Parts: sequence; C-alpha cells; structure tokens
Amino acid sequence: MDTAPAFSFRVCATDGAARQGEITTAHGVIRTPAFMPVGTQAAIKGVQLAAVRAAGADIVLANTYHLMLRPGAERVARLGGLHRFMNWPNPIITDSGGFQVMSLAELRKLDANGVTFRSHVDGALIALTPERAIEVQNLLGSDIVMQLDECLKLPASRDEIARAMQLSIGWAERCKRAFEGAGAGRALYGIVQGGDDARLRVESARALVDIGFPGYAIGGLAVGEPQAVMLKMVEEVVPALPSDRPRYLMGVGTPEDLIESVARGIDMFDCVMPTRDGRHGRAFTRFGAINLRNARHAEDPRPLDGESPCAAARIHSRAYLHHLIRAEEMLGAMLLSEINLAYYQQLMAEMRAAIGTGRFAHFRAATREAWERGDIAPL
Amino acid sequence: MDTAPAFSFRVCATDGAARQGEITTAHGVIRTPAFMPVGTQAAIKGVQLAAVRAAGADIVLANTYHLMLRPGAERVARLGGLHRFMNWPNPIITDSGGFQVMSLAELRKLDANGVTFRSHVDGALIALTPERAIEVQNLLGSDIVMQLDECLKLPASRDEIARAMQLSIGWAERCKRAFEGAGAGRALYGIVQGGDDARLRVESARALVDIGFPGYAIGGLAVGEPQAVMLKMVEEVVPALPSDRPRYLMGVGTPEDLIESVARGIDMFDCVMPTRDGRHGRAFTRFGAINLRNARHAEDPRPLDGESPCAAARIHSRAYLHHLIRAEEMLGAMLLSEINLAYYQQLMAEMRAAIGTGRFAHFRAATREAWERGDIAPL
Repeated sequence: MDTAPAFSFRVCATDGAARQGEITTAHGVIRTPAFMPVGTQAAIKGVQLAAVRAAGADIVLANTYHLMLRPGAERVARLGGLHRFMNWPNPIITDSGGFQVMSLAELRKLDANGVTFRSHVDGALIALTPERAIEVQNLLGSDIVMQLDECLKLPASRDEIARAMQLSIGWAERCKRAFEGAGAGRALYGIVQGGDDARLRVESARALVDIGFPGYAIGGLAVGEPQAVMLKMVEEVVPALPSDRPRYLMGVGTPEDLIESVARGIDMFDCVMPTRDGRHGRAFTRFGAINLRNARHAEDPRPLDGESPCAAARIHSRAYLHHLIRAEEMLGAMLLSEINLAYYQQLMAEMRAAIGTGRFAHFRAATREAWERGDIAPL
Repeated sequence: MDTAPAFSFRVCATDGAARQGEITTAHGVIRTPAFMPVGTQAAIKGVQLAAVRAAGADIVLANTYHLMLRPGAERVARLGGLHRFMNWPNPIITDSGGFQVMSLAELRKLDANGVTFRSHVDGALIALTPERAIEVQNLLGSDIVMQLDECLKLPASRDEIARAMQLSIGWAERCKRAFEGAGAGRALYGIVQGGDDARLRVESARALVDIGFPGYAIGGLAVGEPQAVMLKMVEEVVPALPSDRPRYLMGVGTPEDLIESVARGIDMFDCVMPTRDGRHGRAFTRFGAINLRNARHAEDPRPLDGESPCAAARIHSRAYLHHLIRAEEMLGAMLLSEINLAYYQQLMAEMRAAIGTGRFAHFRAATREAWERGDIAPL
C-alpha cells in the first residue's frame, strides 16, 4: 500500500453551503456529494456490482457487524481483503458495527470498554471494543473506517444522550490510537452524536475536532425523528466542523433528504432505501416516488422514465414492473433496485454539476417542484 | 405477421442419432439442439433477459397456466403480446397450461371437454379446454404453441395411462383445428404421452403423426421415473416420429439427461433446474455439479471455472459464492442462476459443434468423463 495516494479531500466548488469536491483514497476517487449504496453482507441486494458501478457509484458501504460474524474478518483478510472478496476494486467504507450491535443483536453488556453480544449466526459471545472495531475494519481493508460509537434510540433523556455522547468521544480517541499506522490512502472518521439536542451535538463536534479526524460523520439521525429535526441538527453541526474535511450524514435518506442535506453542506450519504424500497415495489424517479404495486400501472405500456440513463427504467413498461412485483418475481426486486440506485446516482451527479456551475438553488427548486408535481398522468 | 418467415426446421448435420439443425420462427432462428430457459411468469428467476440472451439462449419458455391467471392473457395481448411485455424479441415457447393445472391447481373437474380449476391468485373458477389453451397462447403470441394434454403422475395403471393418452390425442385434434389460421412463423406441437409403457408411447406417437404437426414433444417424463426409463421411452418414440420435424423432450433435465437425449435424437429441452438449483447453491460446471454450500469452499479463492465464457463463473471466488449462499444473499441466487444458464448454453453449443463436425461420440464420452472425474481438487 506504500504506493497508494494519500487520503485527501478537495473542495472544487461551493454554492451557498453546498460543496462539490473529490475524496482521494487508496482505491480511487469519490466524487462528492456522494451516495454510497449499502452492501450489508458484501453484496448489494438484487444488483450485481458491475451495474452498481455503471449506475455511477464511486464507493459502496459494507457492514462490519454482519461481516465479522459471517464470513469473519480474519477469513476475508486471508482471502485478500474485502475489495478482492466482493470484486469491487473501487473505494469501500465500513461502519464500526456499533449501530447494528445495538439495534439488531442480543445485547449482553455495554460498558466503557465496549459491547458484548451474541452472534445471530452461531450463538457465540462476541466482544466489540473500539480497538476490535478498528482491527476488524483493518482486516477488511476498507478505505474509510468508522469509529465505534453508541447509538441511542430516540426519544431519550438529555442525561442519557449526554452519557452516550461522552462515551463515544472516549471511544473516538481509542479508535484514533488503534488506527495509527494504517496503510496510506485510508481514513478514520469520527462520529458526531448528541441525539436531538443541538448543544450536545455541537459539544460532540468540537470534542471530535479537538481529537482531529480526516472526516466527520453525523450519526444517530434518520432513526425516526421528523425531517425538520434532522435538518436542524445538520445545520447546528456543520458550522462546528472544519470546512476542509468531508461531512457524512449516516443512514440518510430519501431523495429530498439528500438534496436538503447537500444544501446544508453534507458531502456523503448511505442508505438502504433505494434497494429496500425497490424490493417492495417503490420506484424513485424524476416524478417522485411511484408505487408499482398500484393497480393504475397494470396496463400502462410506458416506461418509468423514457429519458433515464438506466436501461431498466427505459425499456420495461410500468405494466411489466407491476406484474413482476405483484407476482413476487425476483426480477421485479432486481429491476427496481437497479432503477432506484441509478436514480440516486443521477441525482448526485446532477447536484454535483449544479454546484459546480453555481445553479444549485435553481436545481433544488426545480427538482423539488418536479417531485411535488408527481408522476406523469395515467394514459 | 404477414411478412414473418414461415415456420420451418432444417437438419444441418447428423451424427448417429444426434442432429444439429435450425428452427426458423416469426421471431428468429433457434439453433438445435436447444435448451430453453424457463420464464414461468414472463421472467427468468434471478437473471435479467439480456444476460439470458448473452449466455446464448435463442428461445425462452413461459408458462401459460401462470400467465393466464396473472397478468391474464387478454391483458398481455392488449399490451402488445408476450414478446413486447417481457422485452424478449426472440422466439418464445409456451406450454398449454395443462401440466400445471394438474400438478399445482386445486383441480375441480377433468372430463373429455377439458379441466376446470380454481385460480390460486384470486379463487376464480377457470375452464381450460383445448380451444381455450390455444386461444390463450395465441393471445400471448408465442412462436411455439403446445397442445393441451393430460399429464399423469407415475406410477399409474396401464388402463389409466391408456385413457389419458387417448384423451390427449382427441385434444390434439381439437387444438390443431383451433390453431388453424394462426399467424405465419408460428407452430403447434403435438405431445406424445403413454407413461412408461413403450407400446402406448408408440401408439400415441403414430396417432399424432397421423394428425400431423410441425413438431412433436415427448411429455409426461422426468416426473420421478429412473433416467433409464426416460431414455428407453425416448428410444422407443423417436423412430416413430418423422425425421424432418423437431423433437422436444419436455421438462428435461440434468446436463447428463441432455447429452444422453441428444444422443437419441432429441432437439429441444426446457427445465427449471439451472435456476432452481442455482438458487439453492448448486452450480453446474465442466467438472460436474458443485454444491457451494459445502464448507470446503469457504476459503477457496479460485473461481468456479476460470475458462468459462460466463464472467460470473470466472471473476467470483468459490469463497465469495459460498458466503453469498450461506448468508442467503439474493446475489448468490442471481450469480449461480446465471452461471448455470451459461453452462447449459455452453453445453448445447458444444454439442451442436460436435455434431456438425462428426465428433459427437467423442465429445459425449469426454464430457461424461470430466463430470465423473468431478470437481478440481481443493487447494
């Protein structure tokens, strides 16, 4: 890895608070604002990685929690790392495992040292400490590594939010030490916590900036709170973060969430929504979200979007997609997942172009207006 | 359809009983021996049709039973027919619906006029007569149309087999009348029945030849009987069929079934095995069938077949495929279905080439030997 380029972030253009830039990693460049498709178990559900790349993704996310349980981080390392394992030569980001341990696993114990939980695969007791979270991500070989943090479910008391936030800051320091000496072109991000409390959010951000990271995430949002609360937290946190580091809003979101968060200075996103909603028959398009299960599509010969760069959105009729979803054919989930990932990437590319040419406010208004106008009228 | 070429079959080469040829239809040429992937509900499970085509398929099969229930044959016709509906501009074959009515549906009544059954989709009572089976297939617009027949489960008494066979001959005549005047480039096949009784099989074949069809299928096999019985029936029936008409062995089979049936003069096959077994982790390769669930693959970095024409078989490690199958990731089912369809098409292409150059006996022996030698040794 000595010949890999150093990890770096460059802001190429700004337009209001929105930024257009480039993150350089050991495995290539990520154009920002970036949407990172979620490949939980080293695979994007329903879409081959060649199609994910063709849609315009520069980077995918994989979940440390799932991969440490199966096939195991040491096994992935023996097989040459996650890039080779999943056949994705481009950048990879991994989370720390913390969010899923706390939301999915049978939680055994949480203390200052970390969390102990039971594997859902084979029942083994597993300890996840800040040091182990970094070790696992180093074994996977991800380009962007996330600190271990404690994610609370909202609502929670201010005391509880403050306690978890402070714990996460302590873990951030330990993760930074554990990550020292990692190969060139890789970076560890700190994660701002603080629930829906603006003052705790800013306190968290400042503490992390004091520790110093090459990138900062905002975690613990998009967990059920209103969009306005999420955007308010983003507005509070962004000014407390250095302008020369990428900002990543974790687990977000709808196309509207993306455009509004970019408007507030966010550079990176990940979300299961395009694939998960696609499996359930929901398409994201220039005309807003469209539920293909709806009977109005049953005899509509028109494609979802005749001008989409995604072939699946151009060549298949709404009637066919409706049939596949109603019949629970795998192909329906596959096509809508691909169509949605392509629309998300198209939206990011359009935002980047708009910021680069100083037209972001216009693009944002026109795009929102098109979504609100809704789907093209039935035949 | 007036400008479509006439339906025709040409034997280009023979090698023993094996034949290599071409079927011309309204939607293009089918190279024989041909394997026809099964797209039950107007979709191949887990594989986009562009990949099915790229693997070498000239024709796909769709199931009349499923499509008449959902989305409905009249609806498909209003949408421009099945080719346009599923975005497959090449030849399509449909079965009559009879096999699935008798194996899947709640059967209400079977008499000389047809069968009445209850829809599993909405509970409606539906009548399937020979005339309606043809009407539905005409609405779908399939290039090759199958007569309605009665398929028995084996074992069955000789009397019962004889009765069903005679009923099917009567339905063959009615189907032929109902198909008169169908568009150019389309053909109706008769279906030889007779269970595992060689004399009834030959009687059925002769009766159908007297009626006269542009192609003949052998039905009611591959329903659980030993391979030797199936091949014996093929050996009995083939000499009773005209040499200038294609012969289609329905619902068959394993790669070994295909090579042994081609050796006995069969030209066409369909089977769900490559996709169904693929979904369950079984790969078909030059080295025989390989169960990717097996722990011996867990750390094997080698591809299934580094010389496969199918990228998925070349670029993904056995370890990754093993992981995807164990983790029940959709991508595992997708990749193995594609790999298996590609292997089936590769096998057909190799058989066609071997027959064309008079090397079929050698190819058959060498291929069987490679399968029997088994998978390449673990690392």
